[in-house]
Amino acid sequence: MAFELYYWDGIQGRGEFVRLTLEHAGADYVDVTREPDRGTDEMMQFIDSSSEAHIPFAPPFLKDGGQLVSHVANILLYLGPRLDLAPRDEDARWFANGLQLTITDFVAEVHDTHHPIATSKYYEDQKEEAKARAAEFVMNRLPKFLGYFERVLKQNPVQGGHLVGDSLTYVDLSMFQMIEGLVYAFPKAMKHHDIRYPGLARLHDRVKDGPAIASYLASPRRLAFNESGIFRRYPALDIDP
Amino acid sequence: MAFELYYWDGIQGRGEFVRLTLEHAGADYVDVTREPDRGTDEMMQFIDSSSEAHIPFAPPFLKDGGQLVSHVANILLYLGPRLDLAPRDEDARWFANGLQLTITDFVAEVHDTHHPIATSKYYEDQKEEAKARAAEFVMNRLPKFLGYFERVLKQNPVQGGHLVGDSLTYVDLSMFQMIEGLVYAFPKAMKHHDIRYPGLARLHDRVKDGPAIASYLASPRRLAFNESGIFRRYPALDIDP
Repeated sequence: MAFELYYWDGIQGRGEFVRLTLEHAGADYVDVTREPDRGTDEMMQFIDSSSEAHIPFAPPFLKDGGQLVSHVANILLYLGPRLDLAPRDEDARWFANGLQLTITDFVAEVHDTHHPIATSKYYEDQKEEAKARAAEFVMNRLPKFLGYFERVLKQNPVQGGHLVGDSLTYVDLSMFQMIEGLVYAFPKAMKHHDIRYPGLARLHDRVKDGPAIASYLASPRRLAFNESGIFRRYPALDIDP
Repeated sequence: MAFELYYWDGIQGRGEFVRLTLEHAGADYVDVTREPDRGTDEMMQFIDSSSEAHIPFAPPFLKDGGQLVSHVANILLYLGPRLDLAPRDEDARWFANGLQLTITDFVAEVHDTHHPIATSKYYEDQKEEAKARAAEFVMNRLPKFLGYFERVLKQNPVQGGHLVGDSLTYVDLSMFQMIEGLVYAFPKAMKHHDIRYPGLARLHDRVKDGPAIASYLASPRRLAFNESGIFRRYPALDIDP
């Protein structure tokens, strides 16, 4: 039975971290809201349900038969071992989940660069505050997060270029998406990132060029980044540090 | 061997969600940075290590012998089954982790009410933006989160007053802390919360009055809320909706 992914149509968003894992594994899945005969209404029925026990707070969530799993890090924790994209040993699995939760925080901070005051309002209504928050992000938070992940790569005793253990995991796929999104949204701030964070740049390129991901990226299933998603290219927010 | 909790001294902060679970279970643990012969330096050695493979991004993290686990939701996922504070069935465990991750997001939004622009700056340097963000929080986000958790309680088929399944889990303990913190930080906004969210109020009171937690709350191990933590009482940010 196919996995069913529920996420907003029209953007990569948080759903993309799940999609990359499903695509890399060649898993049988349905992107429910993008199906012609299904759609967002079906997703909202789970969220608005007044009878289901396990209601999700927000998309993305995944259905695997009767099992519903919500939140990106939770979905990847669930899928990882099932798709052979989790570390094999227990110790490393706890570390992988911690890394994915750091990526979760990183994503939320990227989002807040364009929405520092109110998710319910437009970027244009909080542009001045967004400039201030983005400056803090580019100057302090971005180097802190990327510097940390570069150290994690460097201190992996296996030295195979993966964040955890000796083979590719869902955390590596998520890190690819972070770099890809940051380069899209902050081209000035990310200039020369490959010199400052060489391990992350190599990991990014390696994921991008892998056959399954390369084929996915060239397919219509990969939507382009746009200014409704998490990673938005607003020149006013992109500074050269 | 005792669990070792690493977190900033002087505040409840994110470490408190872990403490409540350890305390409720009567677990043998050491709060490392508060030990007279140990301290924050020892914590920073893990964070700044240039040789360890599994470095944490930030506190809190837990050591259980040789196993290091970082991030609140990850630590609770690890401790839950070991301290008999996780749901028994698999399906419910995935739901519990999803709920805990929603609490993680909720906590981050509480933090950002007083730091909407820059974590590296004082509240006083972003007070106007904090007022705008707090207004959004009180009017839109707070009712959205609390309304969701109230529905989760209501739709739990067991109807025993717990968020998941038929017995107390770490998620219930975290929800107690959320209500406690919100009432401290936003007394006006939380006025009559017990009428609007009666299930959550009952859950809060039940956790508070349980013997292990009541004893913990009366002990010097429970620090008071203060204006260095996540939940801060700034009258300028508290509005009557």
